[in-house]
Parts: sequence; C-alpha cells; structure tokens
Amino acid sequence: MIDFSNAHALAKTLDQADPLGHVADQFILPDGVIYLDGNSLGCMPKAAMAAITQTAQTEWAQDLIVSWNKADWFELPTTYGDILAPLIGADTGEVVICDTTSLNVYKAIFAGLSLRPDRSVIVAETSSFPTDLYMVEGVLAARGNLSMQLAESESDLLTQITTDTAVVLLNHVDYRTGKICDVAKITRHAHEVGAIVIWDLCHSAGNMPVDLNTHNVDFAIGCTYKYLNGGPGSPAFIFAAKRHISALEQPLTGWWGHAKPFAFDQEFDAAPSIRRFLCGTQPILSFRALKAGLDVFTPLSIDDIRAKSMSLTSMFVELLSEYCPTISLLSPDDAHQRGSQVSVTFANAYPVIQALIERSVIGDFRMPNIMRFGFSPLYTSHQDVAKAVEILADILESDIWRETRFQTRGTVT
Amino acid sequence: MIDFSNAHALAKTLDQADPLGHVADQFILPDGVIYLDGNSLGCMPKAAMAAITQTAQTEWAQDLIVSWNKADWFELPTTYGDILAPLIGADTGEVVICDTTSLNVYKAIFAGLSLRPDRSVIVAETSSFPTDLYMVEGVLAARGNLSMQLAESESDLLTQITTDTAVVLLNHVDYRTGKICDVAKITRHAHEVGAIVIWDLCHSAGNMPVDLNTHNVDFAIGCTYKYLNGGPGSPAFIFAAKRHISALEQPLTGWWGHAKPFAFDQEFDAAPSIRRFLCGTQPILSFRALKAGLDVFTPLSIDDIRAKSMSLTSMFVELLSEYCPTISLLSPDDAHQRGSQVSVTFANAYPVIQALIERSVIGDFRMPNIMRFGFSPLYTSHQDVAKAVEILADILESDIWRETRFQTRGTVT
Repeated sequence: MIDFSNAHALAKTLDQADPLGHVADQFILPDGVIYLDGNSLGCMPKAAMAAITQTAQTEWAQDLIVSWNKADWFELPTTYGDILAPLIGADTGEVVICDTTSLNVYKAIFAGLSLRPDRSVIVAETSSFPTDLYMVEGVLAARGNLSMQLAESESDLLTQITTDTAVVLLNHVDYRTGKICDVAKITRHAHEVGAIVIWDLCHSAGNMPVDLNTHNVDFAIGCTYKYLNGGPGSPAFIFAAKRHISALEQPLTGWWGHAKPFAFDQEFDAAPSIRRFLCGTQPILSFRALKAGLDVFTPLSIDDIRAKSMSLTSMFVELLSEYCPTISLLSPDDAHQRGSQVSVTFANAYPVIQALIERSVIGDFRMPNIMRFGFSPLYTSHQDVAKAVEILADILESDIWRETRFQTRGTVT
Repeated sequence: MIDFSNAHALAKTLDQADPLGHVADQFILPDGVIYLDGNSLGCMPKAAMAAITQTAQTEWAQDLIVSWNKADWFELPTTYGDILAPLIGADTGEVVICDTTSLNVYKAIFAGLSLRPDRSVIVAETSSFPTDLYMVEGVLAARGNLSMQLAESESDLLTQITTDTAVVLLNHVDYRTGKICDVAKITRHAHEVGAIVIWDLCHSAGNMPVDLNTHNVDFAIGCTYKYLNGGPGSPAFIFAAKRHISALEQPLTGWWGHAKPFAFDQEFDAAPSIRRFLCGTQPILSFRALKAGLDVFTPLSIDDIRAKSMSLTSMFVELLSEYCPTISLLSPDDAHQRGSQVSVTFANAYPVIQALIERSVIGDFRMPNIMRFGFSPLYTSHQDVAKAVEILADILESDIWRETRFQTRGTVT
C-alpha cells in the first residue's frame, strides 16, 4: 500500500481554507461515494426535493390550471433564465431556459443564418460534442443550399472562418479533453470577417466565468444538468445578445414563442423578446428542480468557483503524475487551459473505470481508452481528490483491474 | 333558487352504476372544487408523488449517473411509448414520448415530406389549434418551396386534399368546439390521392378510442398533460406507422435519435426504430410523473371511458338546455360527434367563468366569448356535472356575474 499521508494532510489543509467548503452541505451527496462525474450529471441540491414536492402537491394537485398564472409557470423560462444569466456573463432578458441543448443548437444555427442571409457556410469542429454536428446536419437537411466545414484545431479554425462563413458553432470546453477554447480570440476573429458565433457552454457554465457580453458573443447554448445541478434531463438554456433579439428568426415557432400566445391568432408573430426561442409547453416539475440548482450559485463568486476548480484539477493531476505514472494526461497540463475535468488515457481504461466504480469512485469512460473525471467545485473536496487517486493507484498497483469481471462492456453513458 | 333535486338524484344513480367510479380514488382531487378543466391540465394521480420522490431521492441523489442504465432512464421514451400505444390503437414500437407537441408536429411534417419528396403542399385547417399552424409556418420558413393551404370545413378539406398534397395536418377533436373530425374518412381520402396524414390527438388521447392502425394513419402527435394526466408540461408523444419508420427522415437529429448514441460518431446515423424521432436528453422527473398517469389506464377499457365521457357531456348539455337557456351550445349536439368537452357561448362568457371560479367550479375561457368545460371520465362524476350546472344556473339567474370584480381581464390560459 502506497503511503498517501502527505497527500491527505495537504488536502485537509486546502479544504479548511476553502471559501466554498460550506456549499457541499447544500447537496445530498451519495453515501460512501467519491463522485467525480458531476460533468455528466450533477448532484442533487437538498432544496430540490422540497421544490418538487411543493410543485406537485400544491401547484399541480390543488391549484391545477390556476398555477399557470398564480405560480407563474408560464414565466419560468425567462425568470430562471434571468437567474442563470449572470453566471455566464449575460444580462437580464438575454437567456431563456427551454427544451434540450440539441434543440437549442438547431434554433441558434437558424438564428445565426437569419442574420447572415447571404452566406451559406457553417463552421464547426471535428472534436465537437457529436450532437452539435448532428444538429448542423439537420439544419443542412431541412434547409439545403448550405454546407458545413469542420476544423481540426484552433489554428485551423482561424483559417476556416472567412467572409463566406455565416455561423461558427464551437464548444467552449472540449467534452473529451477538457481543453478550453479561447472565446475572446475566436469570437473577435469571426466578427472581423462578419460571421456569427455560437458557443456551446455545456462543460463551462457553472464552473468558470464565461463573460459572454464582455466578449461580444452572439449566441450560446448549454445544458443545466452538469455543473448547474438541475437534475436528470433538466431543461437547457439559450442566450442571444440583446442586439440580435428583435431581428433573429428560427423555425421552431410554437405558441410559447408567440407575441400573444393566448390570443390564439392563426398566424405566428414572434415575441419581441428572448421568448421567441420558446416553442411548446415546458416540463414544470423539471423546471422547479433546476431552480434549486441555480439558487445555490446566487450568493457565490464565480471567481472563487473557478479558483477551487483549478485547485482540484491541479491536485488531481499532480497526484496522478506522482502515484499513477502509467496513466497519460489527455487534458492540458496548464490549469488555465483546462476546464473542470481531467481526462487521462490508459490502454485498459474500461476495466479500470469498472474497478474504480467497485471501490465507489465514480468517473466515466469515453471511447476508445479515455477515463474522464469531473470536479464539481460546489461539492467536491480536495480530500475527495486525494482519496480517489489513492484508490486508483491501488487498483493499478494491485492489477485487480485485470480480473475478468471488469472486462465486460455494458452500455456506457 | 332552482330546484335541482331531480338532477342530483339522477346523477347519483348514474354514478352508482358507473364501472369507472372507483378510478377517481387514484387521483388527488382539489379540495372542494369541481374541476372541469382536465382538458387543459389533468389532475394528479396519487402514485405520481411517490414516483417523483423515488426518482429524486434514489435515482438522482444516490445513484446519480448509474441510473441511466440501472433505472433505464435512456429507455423511458420508448418504454412509456409502448404503455401509451394501446390507448391510441398503436402497436409496440410505434410510439415514443419526447419533447413537446409543437416540436413533434415539426418532426411529423418533415417526416411526411420525406416520404413525398415530389410534393410541396401542406393542408391544414383554419380551426386548428394555432401552434400546429405556427409549426407549419416554421417548416415553410426552414425549408422553402412549400406552401400551406387552409381548409374551412370538413367538406372543404376533402376538396383541398389532392394529388398535389404532400402532408395533411389535422386535429382529431377541435380544441374550441369539441367536434370530432372523421379520422377514417379523411385518412382514406388522403391515401386515395397519395397524401400523408398527421393527426393531432391532444383532445382525444385518453378519452376515446383512436384506432390509429385500424384507420391506417401515418403519423400522430399529442400531449400527455390533458386527459392522460401526466402533469404540467409533461412530455408529448409521436406515433409513426411501422411501415414508415425505416424510411422517414426528420431534421431534429440529436444524439438521442442516433443508431449508436454512445459511440459518439461524428456523423449522424438515424436509429432504425421509432427512436429516430428523439433529439436531446429528456426531463426524467417529468417522465416519472407521466408514468403514474399512464398506469391508471392499463386495467381500464377505453370503450368504458368513452361511454362515461358521452354520459357526462350529455348530462351537462341536457341540464344546460333545461336550466341555462340563455347559453348557446357550440359543441355538437350529438354526443357521438363530440369529444369529452362541452363548449358554449354566452355574450359575457368571461365574467361568468370568473364567477364560476369564485364558486369553485373550474372551466376555462376562450376568446371571444366561449366557455369550455372538460369532463375527464377518470375522475369526474355525474354528481359533479349536476352541481356545476346548478351553480352556473344560479350565477346566471342572480346576475352576480355583472359585478365589477368579475369583469377585469387578467392573463387567461
């Protein structure tokens, strides 16, 4: 057994000085588990249960249809959008919560195209989270006379974004490697050639400053079930810079995006606000759970959150380098270039992840040989980090992962 | 005060003979309220609270990411689709629960167009629920080179559906009048000229037999928060006849609709099943609540449900005719032509609805002068009907609705 006492002592000291140390109390953390998968599904805020219960037992069961007004159900997409806005550097009235990330990608691409009707090229990245690319394919299939170009790297991106480019769709943080893409630089370049930029914030919203308006970003989308702790499949968000809202058009024009939804007019007339990104009736129970996740952030400083995130991932990287030398770092070595996850490669990543799960350390596996560990600054401690690496080192040293029971591949999420 | 004793006695007799009388016990009914708005938002099944609590406290809070497999979250759209299927005359594998009705309209229209690539006309109705028309507008805006024709009546519809028609989008039950459209006749006519038909079942699913496959219907969509009692904004459904599934295409091609969603391939490859209508991650809490709503139907006969629905609306119409002669029936007089709602017109419908609400009778108002009352056969009794008409008659006779407090128009849902 490796001696981890120094690591544990350091972790304890860092946790004692952590200004966010008290926040973990606001979450239900799984019993006896070190959960390093908040980049996939965030933990449940304690307040979520009360919110859901109140919504079900009072708003739904007792007040029923009256709740559309009395409980402001109809306004939740923008009310909650305004709560989320400061976390991503957006203003009131620029964010709406609705539908799914994939659907919001589709809307944002069309919105961008509507602002650049004389252009026909969409630029994205080969390393994109796949659904973003699938949605570009969908836009191409729906509309025709468009083309997609895929960039292989950040420098390739700068070459490919030209005066032909209508829309650029990029991931702020790479879902596999955790590498941060330079929002300021790419957005500036795109604007210099007149292109519209959409940022996918799935892996950055809630763990680092995003500063959308500082960087003059046009559109952004993202999910709320990772670092925002909104619950499984909680509704996604979409941001549009105020300057674009009155002009943008998108084709998912359902009644919730109508200027007068309850006039039941025969023709569509888009709401003169961010609501024009809404389409149909939103899942209220999932909205209420999400609110509990968003509320946790309100009194906190996003700079504190980022500082803790960097401290956690740095400690993990350093301990790995010391105690698990057979594992290679896939994420950037410089914490400033890295999101709140650390990805590593190992020839037998799948059985190792399975062996970690057996020891109650939850990370996730990505094809072909990637182990991905997410560090949620709101509830992960440095002591969790030290303990996780100790267990990983033990699994590697003992070769227990070679046992047959860890080799079988099930469905992997 | 009018003597309603005969009506109450009859209602009691009918309720005692009601084979569905016991079903109301499975719902939380609002205290002291006669709720005639289940056509807008259905009441909460008692089992929903336990389902949501279990999902939040165990699946989310404790099991977290493991629940995608352990709790079959990823399969819920088709698992629950298969539970819903028999209610609408569909087979296993033909229904998927997802997203919203409006979004599913968009997918279904594109799916229909993909099967009729040489045609460019979409036929709908002026009386359609508006969001269906808005979504046709969206399809036209996205794709171009298409046109929409609106029919004014059922006979006009038969004239307008021709060999130029690609897709016909119709409402099974008119949301304002409750009039049933003849699915068999229209579908047959559309098929004779080679058109694809989409039926919107929002106001029929769960209150009458729909028999999609008996009538050879191509596509159908609908919501689950009305007669299916799935909860506020519960996810919608979409049906495709098995013969169309492998060929249809729709552009909302997110990763949940991919043949291998966890392979993270760069290119989209549609699932070879009804899952190709899926797009992004679904709201699990809202799904679990919906399951409680669907489960109520499993042991019941849809013919019993329809018989009770007709009995309830017929009693309401007869009592209105006897006790509220100043009110005009907007719904068909023949119960066989009528869904599970009764709509009436009255010059001062808005203040009357407000006065009814004050007396705890909940119906809803639709512009300009329509009062709409929904009768949910699972939990509405004949005694509710008699009591509601007694109160309405009293409000009309007393002229109390003329009081100023009932005149102010708020937001109306």
